[in-house]
Amino acid sequence: MLLSDEISPEFIKSLDIAGKKQLCDEIREFLIENVSGSGGHLASNLGTVELTVALHSVFSTPGDKIVFDVGHQCYTHKIITGRYAGFGKLRSAGGISGFPRSTESEHDAFIGGHSSISVSAALGIAKAMQLEGSSGSVVAVIGDGALTGGEAYEGLNNLDRSVKNLIVVLNDNEMSISRSKGTVSDYLTRMRSSRSYFNKKEAVKEFLSHSEVGKEISKSISGTKDLVKFAIYQSNIFESLGLKYYGPVNGHDVEKLIEILEIAKMTNEPCIVHIKTKKGKGYRPAELNSGEYHGVARGNHTGLRSRSYSELAGKKLLRLAEKDERICAVTAAMKYATGLEHIAKAYPERFFDVGIAEQHALTFCCGLASQGMVPVFAVYSTFLQRCFDQLVHDASIERKHIVLFIDRAGFVGEDGETHQGIYDVPMLSSVPGTAIWSPFDEATLEMCIEKALQSDCIAAVRYPRGICPEGSVSEYSDCYLSGNGSDTLIVTYGRISLGAQSVDSADTLTLLKIYPIPEEAVETALRYKRVFFFEESMRSGGIAEKFLCRLYERGFTGKYHITAIEAPAPAADTDTQLAEAGLDAAHIAARTERHRSETET
Amino acid sequence: MLLSDEISPEFIKSLDIAGKKQLCDEIREFLIENVSGSGGHLASNLGTVELTVALHSVFSTPGDKIVFDVGHQCYTHKIITGRYAGFGKLRSAGGISGFPRSTESEHDAFIGGHSSISVSAALGIAKAMQLEGSSGSVVAVIGDGALTGGEAYEGLNNLDRSVKNLIVVLNDNEMSISRSKGTVSDYLTRMRSSRSYFNKKEAVKEFLSHSEVGKEISKSISGTKDLVKFAIYQSNIFESLGLKYYGPVNGHDVEKLIEILEIAKMTNEPCIVHIKTKKGKGYRPAELNSGEYHGVARGNHTGLRSRSYSELAGKKLLRLAEKDERICAVTAAMKYATGLEHIAKAYPERFFDVGIAEQHALTFCCGLASQGMVPVFAVYSTFLQRCFDQLVHDASIERKHIVLFIDRAGFVGEDGETHQGIYDVPMLSSVPGTAIWSPFDEATLEMCIEKALQSDCIAAVRYPRGICPEGSVSEYSDCYLSGNGSDTLIVTYGRISLGAQSVDSADTLTLLKIYPIPEEAVETALRYKRVFFFEESMRSGGIAEKFLCRLYERGFTGKYHITAIEAPAPAADTDTQLAEAGLDAAHIAARTERHRSETET
Repeated sequence: MLLSDEISPEFIKSLDIAGKKQLCDEIREFLIENVSGSGGHLASNLGTVELTVALHSVFSTPGDKIVFDVGHQCYTHKIITGRYAGFGKLRSAGGISGFPRSTESEHDAFIGGHSSISVSAALGIAKAMQLEGSSGSVVAVIGDGALTGGEAYEGLNNLDRSVKNLIVVLNDNEMSISRSKGTVSDYLTRMRSSRSYFNKKEAVKEFLSHSEVGKEISKSISGTKDLVKFAIYQSNIFESLGLKYYGPVNGHDVEKLIEILEIAKMTNEPCIVHIKTKKGKGYRPAELNSGEYHGVARGNHTGLRSRSYSELAGKKLLRLAEKDERICAVTAAMKYATGLEHIAKAYPERFFDVGIAEQHALTFCCGLASQGMVPVFAVYSTFLQRCFDQLVHDASIERKHIVLFIDRAGFVGEDGETHQGIYDVPMLSSVPGTAIWSPFDEATLEMCIEKALQSDCIAAVRYPRGICPEGSVSEYSDCYLSGNGSDTLIVTYGRISLGAQSVDSADTLTLLKIYPIPEEAVETALRYKRVFFFEESMRSGGIAEKFLCRLYERGFTGKYHITAIEAPAPAADTDTQLAEAGLDAAHIAARTERHRSETET
Repeated sequence: MLLSDEISPEFIKSLDIAGKKQLCDEIREFLIENVSGSGGHLASNLGTVELTVALHSVFSTPGDKIVFDVGHQCYTHKIITGRYAGFGKLRSAGGISGFPRSTESEHDAFIGGHSSISVSAALGIAKAMQLEGSSGSVVAVIGDGALTGGEAYEGLNNLDRSVKNLIVVLNDNEMSISRSKGTVSDYLTRMRSSRSYFNKKEAVKEFLSHSEVGKEISKSISGTKDLVKFAIYQSNIFESLGLKYYGPVNGHDVEKLIEILEIAKMTNEPCIVHIKTKKGKGYRPAELNSGEYHGVARGNHTGLRSRSYSELAGKKLLRLAEKDERICAVTAAMKYATGLEHIAKAYPERFFDVGIAEQHALTFCCGLASQGMVPVFAVYSTFLQRCFDQLVHDASIERKHIVLFIDRAGFVGEDGETHQGIYDVPMLSSVPGTAIWSPFDEATLEMCIEKALQSDCIAAVRYPRGICPEGSVSEYSDCYLSGNGSDTLIVTYGRISLGAQSVDSADTLTLLKIYPIPEEAVETALRYKRVFFFEESMRSGGIAEKFLCRLYERGFTGKYHITAIEAPAPAADTDTQLAEAGLDAAHIAARTERHRSETET
């Protein structure tokens, strides 16, 4: 048994190839046994075991830097760099993060929760090292899925030969980019990954430029590029960007990986190392059904997936799409997690999975809307952040009617700081011509979706990750008042309103439409002496601030207290996150009661 | 003389080639005579005269759709589609926009102020037309500069063969993408743009697959791709995305353009038409010095450029960079307009122009910062909108110290709705760990820049387009109080504070640090009976709302009134925009006085 608390980058380097292979097997077994609870992330991590061992064989962190893109492929890296013992508390309160975090370890060069940023970050790191006279290497590890994000391309487009020490490892797991796949000849692989490749390449060039046949080839070469395209998976896109390219090699052959990484390390300019891996490698359920498995895994882990907000929203959308041919559905690589697989199956021509490309998704929706279609973009709150400019420029100015299903709004649990859905409200409410609904159960979810689709603006329905209660609301209203005529009012919205409604010492006003703030809600609140606003969203720029401004305009002079999110919460279960932010039923009750007493004295 | 009020797409189609050439000459002359006042946009428009005449010869708007990317190349299109007479009021109040606006004309298929969105928008339009059974063509016209934006790549990556009617015209004006340029052989051009191209290509394939030499070639083909790369400018990037490619052709040869567009129109799948044009074609000053001219033109048009906020900020940064080797400067294709040419010249190794790629720029800055450098990203407020997610994820969560020079903050004048710098405050102030300064003259600009660089957070200095007054402030303070002890206080920040300070009937509190709101400012305001907040930024999510919340927490019960921007302003000069929003000195005085009287009665 090689895997132990003593494992370290130095230990990896001391192993021979047989030892490294054994360690890879042990890590894979460990991951399957210990991490399968955390779902989708298992598959990505099983795909990168050998790569990570090879990286730590060739490079020495923290002097050398490894930047993992969409970092849930970083578990082997964490095991190797002193965090093996921490896996008992992976992704839980006080434990290690599921993503690379430079605040967690000096071996994590850059934060890695969102996609497609690794090349840009690595380039910044490499340029800084160059300016500081440091000689280390910088490696960006990016999956083929993340490569569809525009920023990855912006990063690649900015690599130039002045950066000597940057290596981009393309982890091609044959899932995300299906369109560009092709057969790869063994000959080319061998030639391109061997040390004699450069010489051969030069020789071919030389040959072509001097012989008659060569000149003929260079004349007709444009006609042969399709052959190249089918022969070398996407390599030409990199070479057309002026980047040196090695590969593809089998990403589960640790010996070959070390060989090619050594070559890349010696290369005196930026280069791409293309490796092919299998997501879920070694774990039969994931290997056999990687597409469906991947989606399910990224969705709800509770086993009650069919009752999730996402699922119910997706099914409601399907029912509406049956009656309205204008309705289209768009996702950025989240078909299953956002519940869009139902409409995708029933109406494939009106369903669009654009890959990890949120900016494109938003503009694409505006293009659809400009011709009278009603596009629905179902997107996690945290990834909607990628589209702020498109919301302002493409959607708002000319008042396009697009619908946003903002999934995973509010706290998201174990993914931690990088994925909290807490900025969508400030973001959208600063843009003219938006409306936001925040349902709290199945009945209101369906009503809000109908309202959003019937509106003529940027219409957003925001709902949380997790199980959606059935609910008993029978009729749509912008807001609901409940209670016994207290002089104290709790104002809130979304799932936390269910807890708030259980507080006896105060009435509760639940906003269903949260922006623009309903006039009726303001009128209602004005009748109370004390108003407590609880908001599962960022405080700065949130609804509570705006609500006070509205009340104040109308002469309100009572007590007003805001409880909202001040900073993104670290990994924990959602209940814990809500409690720590003072947004669960117990805290809402306690805070309301305490402040009531304070103002009465 | 062919150019007249009567000009129309139908008229274009009725002309023979000689007539079309004559019309192009007349349009070029008209643009030089009538539009040179609007600066940089002249050059882009001179580059696309023949293309636009060719487009309207081959396609029929509004049935066919033309989407112009970074639409300031759309003037010829506007002339042809009924807006010739409107050029007297181009880019001024009540006049025609400098950008395509679907609200202005049915011939403008999509809004076009920001860059890199045309392919995504065109794809949305094309898919909608397909679903609706419409048979028209959709053409996206994108410059090589806009092509560096990640969203353009996301769009291209989403083109598939199910869209039969989409044509992307790449207007390559040999300026923005210098790295990828190469020589193009006449032979290839002729072959690729001729109707027999397909046959030849097939023939070459056939030949290769059957002969011994051909097999040899397909074996060694990877070694010859560099030749291809130099032979065909960037074409391989498109073909590797699976797109049909035609070109390059001379973009000033209207006959050839028509021929190639006809071929593209007949092509039953998405295709790229690559044309080469000369920016400023026909206008000697622009042709001779296009780089410098382009930058200057996009900067300040007043002739007092050396006194602009941008210039002063750039020069201050240079002085600080002389003393601090950690300081780096980053721009997204705005070296001249943001005043960074000075640091670029003095310290080229610490200056980075990343092209139109704001997302990359922000992450790149965080990469630099992670190694202890102090990156300064100088960016227009409106383009910072592209980086919201990067601010949240890459910068805020792990508290990277990056500095933002937010240029063109507030109203920007003639560019109109698409370019107003009015969202940066709500955006940044919702993100934890940010600080925002808003200087109002040269002295405070320099102080704020120093403060921002010395801080340890996401530090933003926001300043407007235009001339920066010298100012007389001698010492830094988070805020400045002026006046004679009135019971009424005006709170404001930025350039409009200069107007506010001239109001006699009230004291004025000018915030220099606007976020987090200085405690001192709250203390001061609490002493007043009436507080009027004037803000050159969006009201929703702005500082005025937050300021009231702070006052209310502290027991404020006086009059509070907010004047801020409710929606982006259409084109007009900045003074007009400020006046219409009630933010110039006269309106500030009047509003303060009026409300004073109201509350006294």
